[in-house]
Amino acid sequence: MQKPAIPKGTRDFSPEEMEKRNYIFDTIRSVFYLYGFKQIETPAMENLSTLMGKYGEEGDKLLFKILNSGDFLKGINEDDLENRNLSRLTYQICEKGLRYDLTVPFARFVVMHRNEISFPFRRFQIQPVWRADRPQKGRYREFFQCDADIVGSDSLLNEVELIQMTDEVYKRFGIRVCIKMNNRKILSGIAEIIGEAEKIVDITVAIDKLDKIGLENVNAELAAKGIADSAIAKLQPIILLKGSNREKLQILKRELHSSEIGMTGVLEMEKILDKIEIVGMNSELEMDLTLARGLNYYTGAIFEVKALDVQIGSITGGGRYDNLTGVFGMPGVSGVGISFGADRIFDVLNQLNLYPAGSAQKTKVLFVNFGEKEEDHIFPYLYQLRKNGVNAEIFPEAVKMKKQMSYADANNIAFVVIAGETEIQEKVFLIKNMKTGEQQSIPQNKFIDYFSE
Amino acid sequence: MQKPAIPKGTRDFSPEEMEKRNYIFDTIRSVFYLYGFKQIETPAMENLSTLMGKYGEEGDKLLFKILNSGDFLKGINEDDLENRNLSRLTYQICEKGLRYDLTVPFARFVVMHRNEISFPFRRFQIQPVWRADRPQKGRYREFFQCDADIVGSDSLLNEVELIQMTDEVYKRFGIRVCIKMNNRKILSGIAEIIGEAEKIVDITVAIDKLDKIGLENVNAELAAKGIADSAIAKLQPIILLKGSNREKLQILKRELHSSEIGMTGVLEMEKILDKIEIVGMNSELEMDLTLARGLNYYTGAIFEVKALDVQIGSITGGGRYDNLTGVFGMPGVSGVGISFGADRIFDVLNQLNLYPAGSAQKTKVLFVNFGEKEEDHIFPYLYQLRKNGVNAEIFPEAVKMKKQMSYADANNIAFVVIAGETEIQEKVFLIKNMKTGEQQSIPQNKFIDYFSE
Repeated sequence: MQKPAIPKGTRDFSPEEMEKRNYIFDTIRSVFYLYGFKQIETPAMENLSTLMGKYGEEGDKLLFKILNSGDFLKGINEDDLENRNLSRLTYQICEKGLRYDLTVPFARFVVMHRNEISFPFRRFQIQPVWRADRPQKGRYREFFQCDADIVGSDSLLNEVELIQMTDEVYKRFGIRVCIKMNNRKILSGIAEIIGEAEKIVDITVAIDKLDKIGLENVNAELAAKGIADSAIAKLQPIILLKGSNREKLQILKRELHSSEIGMTGVLEMEKILDKIEIVGMNSELEMDLTLARGLNYYTGAIFEVKALDVQIGSITGGGRYDNLTGVFGMPGVSGVGISFGADRIFDVLNQLNLYPAGSAQKTKVLFVNFGEKEEDHIFPYLYQLRKNGVNAEIFPEAVKMKKQMSYADANNIAFVVIAGETEIQEKVFLIKNMKTGEQQSIPQNKFIDYFSE
Repeated sequence: MQKPAIPKGTRDFSPEEMEKRNYIFDTIRSVFYLYGFKQIETPAMENLSTLMGKYGEEGDKLLFKILNSGDFLKGINEDDLENRNLSRLTYQICEKGLRYDLTVPFARFVVMHRNEISFPFRRFQIQPVWRADRPQKGRYREFFQCDADIVGSDSLLNEVELIQMTDEVYKRFGIRVCIKMNNRKILSGIAEIIGEAEKIVDITVAIDKLDKIGLENVNAELAAKGIADSAIAKLQPIILLKGSNREKLQILKRELHSSEIGMTGVLEMEKILDKIEIVGMNSELEMDLTLARGLNYYTGAIFEVKALDVQIGSITGGGRYDNLTGVFGMPGVSGVGISFGADRIFDVLNQLNLYPAGSAQKTKVLFVNFGEKEEDHIFPYLYQLRKNGVNAEIFPEAVKMKKQMSYADANNIAFVVIAGETEIQEKVFLIKNMKTGEQQSIPQNKFIDYFSE
């Protein structure tokens, strides 16, 4: 007899959790549709040749690999086996792996289906991904990503739309957020201006930590990376840039005027702000030069969303990239995308208690079961309620009232309906509101209407 | 440069396919809610110890196994390696596998969460499963199952509810179906009566083929399995049972009166029919004694759904089982469940062209992009449309009109809106209905209302 368990880092989702998760996914999905995004899905398994080398050496190790079916040792290299050459053996006994993110499968999808797609392609995808990471609080081996991307267009309108869409999503959730924005070209411009263009990665990694470790430690880290004191000095006014977005842009225009790439970034940012202002936003939008994100991937605007009322990492992020599909033989596909972190949004909504009260996923009415005869009496009413779109159940067995009531309680059922011998004789239903405890006697001919407002 | 591909037996789903699949899943889900079912999800990966031995020897081979992370050869048995003992090696290098169905993970879930669940537990689950089967037409290595089960109650009301729910699902799809029903206890009774109780599996396997191979071949197969001629003769009136459900029940009552288990089955069937008749059904409901299904698993009522207007295997199936969780140390949990075959329903809806015309998943309005100035003019209208719940887009670049129109065509967008210099001056929008080709000029102040009926 086994004591059952699930693999570490994975989760079961109970009905209560599913209700919340469906609320999150449904909300995001409906906003995606509103903005013209179309859903796709890709298989959980991809060929390892599709996945390998896309996430760095560390990422390759974190891929879950699937053992070949049948004789997986057939044709294996005996030397590799003898020498325990694990990485070479792995690719001989495993051809497939579980997807690690939604971006690489999306790139593969675009290339495979290029002739069926009408570009610009506005796609979204909400599916689980798997990473063999060490599990810890808030980090799972299976988790969902919600990605929306527009590929095949380098218009800045796309950035504007993604920002507006993000604003709309959080407005619907009722979560107050600050959308932070930066531009990779501005960061490149800054590195150029201070004479350390080739140290761009070190610089951005360091200033990205400003919030956490403070200015002094950032400067120490920059020095440790071999950045000249004069360059660090020049960097100070930029790191500490304050004021409104427009004020920041003015200062950057002055500081970066001799860097072509830097000025391109500043003008992109300015245009995005101009367009956003036409209809305005619900959320704060803040230019933040310390925002870095995966630099090797992004090439233009980058975004991150911070919840204002909860202490938690970024709950959404994204940006512009230049060469999504090049690695699969289709160069020149630029795009911009955004990814919503469902698990963190779940935590924020829980902490702020922002889930909507009513739910189409809950049972509204439970009929108490008193036995055969009463069942038959109830059946047409149960049928009619459901026909009117009211989620309803009858307890399947005529067990003690107390047990049936506690079932209703445990399942958060709003109303319990009692139709025993007495009620049937009196041609009424006794309706108990489980929240207020109130009981009400309703004539049979008014019963259906009672629940159909 | 790689030419990208996906593993055989797996599929990408395009936006058009996703729209149809979402329609299928949303329809089923909303009926599940109506009947009080609650959704759960379980992880894609389960411990192999949870999965192994649950699907027979063949099933064990069809499990996708996941290579352990890190040094998967550490502590491996050298003899097993030398002797190429594949099955022993597999469990040394793989601890986890992908789920093969939703039933075993559900049983594991019930046992693990027994203290949080209020029984009877009405759960549904819609998730992909994976099988390393040889791919062929209509058979995939990744496919979705939609299961609904009621566990912790042996009331026949549960069977009745599942039949009514199935009826409602197909009514909503507009698919005409026959719900076939049988009962394992009746089959046992028949085997008992003809004096071949221990040959029940052979008998049911044979008569299950009646439709395909005809009576003569069924009888030949029975004889080949060593069933006595006299027993085969006794079986004939039962195999060939005709008439209404009530007539069949009358005959079975006569034929099976000396079999206790047989009579129990007959009375169960009768009670289910009684309850169903109270409110009636949209679909046909037919008692079919040749219906067998996985006998080792089911113990009472069994169901199968056949589409009437399309040649295809069963599109839904299920039944009563007695010991779901025994293997995980929790005996006595009876249940009854039903599983909808999403892929086959997809095919049936396609063949009968039954998908609804309008869809909340499509873009309704595309604004043509003429450049900066026109963009800024359009922005507030685009914003307002979306605010009113109309899915809308602006083409992100001011490319040739023809390209923008063909984008609208390819994406099945219903209306294209033109607001160039002239229209702006005349304070109108030109609206083109992409289906009819009609064009209409609408004053700016009536534009939002036009799309908001």
